[in-house]
Amino acid sequence: MSPSSHADLLDALRAQLGPAQVITASDAMAGHLTEMRGLYRGTALAVVRPANTEEVALTVRACAQAGVPLVAQGGNTGLVGGGVPAGGIVLSLARLDRVRSLDPVNATMTVEAGCILATVQEAAETAGLLFPLSLASEGSCRIGGNLATNAGGTAVLAYGNARDLVLGLEVVLADGRIWNGLKALRKDNAGYDLKQLFVGSEGTLGIITAAVLKLHPRPASTATAFVGLASAGAALALLTRLRSRAGGRLTAFEYMPRFGLEIVLRHAEGVVRPFAGDHAAYALVEISSEGPEAEALLEDLLGEALQDELAEDAVVARSTAQSKALWRLRESLSEVQRREGASIKHDVAVAVSRVPEFLERASAACEAALPGVRVCAFGHLGDGNIHFNLTQPIGMEAAAFLDLWPRFNRIVHDIVHAMDGSIAAEHGVGLIKRDELLRYKDPVALDLMRRLKAALDPDGILNPGKVVPSESGAAASAPPGAGP
Amino acid sequence: MSPSSHADLLDALRAQLGPAQVITASDAMAGHLTEMRGLYRGTALAVVRPANTEEVALTVRACAQAGVPLVAQGGNTGLVGGGVPAGGIVLSLARLDRVRSLDPVNATMTVEAGCILATVQEAAETAGLLFPLSLASEGSCRIGGNLATNAGGTAVLAYGNARDLVLGLEVVLADGRIWNGLKALRKDNAGYDLKQLFVGSEGTLGIITAAVLKLHPRPASTATAFVGLASAGAALALLTRLRSRAGGRLTAFEYMPRFGLEIVLRHAEGVVRPFAGDHAAYALVEISSEGPEAEALLEDLLGEALQDELAEDAVVARSTAQSKALWRLRESLSEVQRREGASIKHDVAVAVSRVPEFLERASAACEAALPGVRVCAFGHLGDGNIHFNLTQPIGMEAAAFLDLWPRFNRIVHDIVHAMDGSIAAEHGVGLIKRDELLRYKDPVALDLMRRLKAALDPDGILNPGKVVPSESGAAASAPPGAGP
Repeated sequence: MSPSSHADLLDALRAQLGPAQVITASDAMAGHLTEMRGLYRGTALAVVRPANTEEVALTVRACAQAGVPLVAQGGNTGLVGGGVPAGGIVLSLARLDRVRSLDPVNATMTVEAGCILATVQEAAETAGLLFPLSLASEGSCRIGGNLATNAGGTAVLAYGNARDLVLGLEVVLADGRIWNGLKALRKDNAGYDLKQLFVGSEGTLGIITAAVLKLHPRPASTATAFVGLASAGAALALLTRLRSRAGGRLTAFEYMPRFGLEIVLRHAEGVVRPFAGDHAAYALVEISSEGPEAEALLEDLLGEALQDELAEDAVVARSTAQSKALWRLRESLSEVQRREGASIKHDVAVAVSRVPEFLERASAACEAALPGVRVCAFGHLGDGNIHFNLTQPIGMEAAAFLDLWPRFNRIVHDIVHAMDGSIAAEHGVGLIKRDELLRYKDPVALDLMRRLKAALDPDGILNPGKVVPSESGAAASAPPGAGP
Repeated sequence: MSPSSHADLLDALRAQLGPAQVITASDAMAGHLTEMRGLYRGTALAVVRPANTEEVALTVRACAQAGVPLVAQGGNTGLVGGGVPAGGIVLSLARLDRVRSLDPVNATMTVEAGCILATVQEAAETAGLLFPLSLASEGSCRIGGNLATNAGGTAVLAYGNARDLVLGLEVVLADGRIWNGLKALRKDNAGYDLKQLFVGSEGTLGIITAAVLKLHPRPASTATAFVGLASAGAALALLTRLRSRAGGRLTAFEYMPRFGLEIVLRHAEGVVRPFAGDHAAYALVEISSEGPEAEALLEDLLGEALQDELAEDAVVARSTAQSKALWRLRESLSEVQRREGASIKHDVAVAVSRVPEFLERASAACEAALPGVRVCAFGHLGDGNIHFNLTQPIGMEAAAFLDLWPRFNRIVHDIVHAMDGSIAAEHGVGLIKRDELLRYKDPVALDLMRRLKAALDPDGILNPGKVVPSESGAAASAPPGAGP
């Protein structure tokens, strides 16, 4: 397409959305052209900021007619390059930020895609209910992006992924038509469940503009504990025990290795050692209930676990402040890794029952490949989802370490694959894992993915080049010099 | 296709599956040609009974090459005509009935499509876990059919629909390829979530041959109560209270009207009146917990509800036998309706908060259309899913009443549609509601459904004529003389 027709498209969009909503100044576009960690840098004709669903639709229609691709962005907090443009238009959903309605008796709310996750959580809380999705970026990520990536986080154990928290969607399709699927129903088998197509498709099949979210009762009591354990196997045994005894009231079970707590205590500000001794592994455990019993139940269960030698030490928070302090030990971990040098990161999942085996195999393989590498593997044990991160050896040059990223991908992902796991557990595929799918995904599954893409976006207008690898993989972009 | 090439196809299948597994005798085929209630009667060239996934695949491949359509059948217990053949082959999954594996720590089991639901429940129980899907037909329906129809039932309130209980699928596609998606993962965003396509598609997009099911902790205590209420609105208020106080431990909330309990007490064998007085509405309530507190919690909550005049009377079961007797009051209702004459049935859903309004509007409209008609509306209030059934007026001729089915469809479904509800809540679309979708479904949604069908089954081999209405609706089959 010629530059003059690009100019025509932008003029048409300016005429319809107002000139201020079609941004082409490079400084104003800058924040939309890279992802959070700066691993990918894209280009765009413009950042377009529609105000409502109709304006999203007319933007997509105009782009489709002009043959110009679009990438939708919410908070642009993704970690896999899924929101980075490669030419074309960045369609920002940030102005679609209304809570359209909330029905406390149906326990649902209808929100626009650009609502910040924390705003959604607060609106639910104001109605005495809970929207449980909880992520590190909740203060800036937007619900449309959470749904488009099927976000996970720390509450999946009890409440499921983003997919499990949505009842209906409104979506702008690749040709600019609007599909209104904003049903607020717990049971609906009147035809194919179309919303499932768009959840987790990272903007490649349609652009989510609004959603009906499922809310939960707000817990009346919550209790948090930090537990010292002899091994990852002991953590798994404790998880199994707590789940069988607390069921859906076990609302978090986060795993940290000894190295993880060490670097948190070394680098994070204002953190306090939870107990005197050191342990091979740690768990952050949370129990919540609509009744008053959370703390008593957690005390009982951990008391038994100590007696049965499932756990080596445990501390239960006695106040909200103490609870926050324990959570801070876990939440600081993402942040403090960089203080120990460069990291090579993997977001993987295996069956919950196989996490200890995975940790052992993958750690041994990485340590053999690079003596001195420090494994920092932590995460959502209750979901089998481990952030298998590698911290560089002490004294190694960061760039030289990061050059090994493809090699460590191969080591870790081969083990995950051999164990029937997922190489993209909660962060998605985007650019960074797209071509890994060629190696690990069943060719039949890849064919189905391509058929869906062709059926819903035949001209390849929506977020082209993301998620779905090309047949040959030949035209694939190189992996980033410094991956996430 | 000519009869001789049909004969060639059957000969080829006999050679590959064994002659006994290709059934053409009309008496042996009879049970596969009609659905449970005898509303639809189909024809078939043969009933084919493969033993395993590979045999399913070769059967589908042979049919695809011969241009002969297939309909997959599990227990053939569906209520919408989704499993009725229209020529072609009936592919029975009944011989694929192995539990392939069970992982108690991951809380998953891998089962073949032909496993009877009760067998799945028992296998979970043997491992100390719970597979919560629970339906009237659980002794004969098969898990592949439950997943293909996204079955609901009485446990959806706490555990979700069949869709929410599956982590992975193995599916034979329309061209006979096998997609192995038998992942046992709680988090997996490595590409589009393909299993969602097949769950709820009623065999029109692929044939499910095996599944990884999600298991839950087995409750240590369960308590059941039967409650007398002043109105459907009071039932909703009680539900709201119990849900906010018991959360996920509220595992059933079933609604019955006065007329429902009356006919159960009149016709069902061995049932006992739960309490002396009559009430406008009733609820069957169940609380379950991994802890010991179910009965005490239910007692407390109902005590408060009586005191606050949310409930008029209540009885809590003191034994398993008493609990079964209370459940029998609810479960007998489907059966006893026929003892009062012919029924016209609707399986609909609205937002939970709007159920009382729906009941009022739909009852008034039906009673105005046919004075003397008796509304028997009951079901899963916690899911907003009401079986809005009409019992014929006393003394009217059954056939004359059933002739009014299309008229009552229009009355009831128009109200459901106006209230943003679903005209096919848990039983699916099949044949009986396919052309209703033309009236009530967004044309954009219908277009998306047709695109999916064309993308996954371009030659229309899989269960043709079901779920997806044709563009014109003109070639549509007439509604049954006596609908479900």
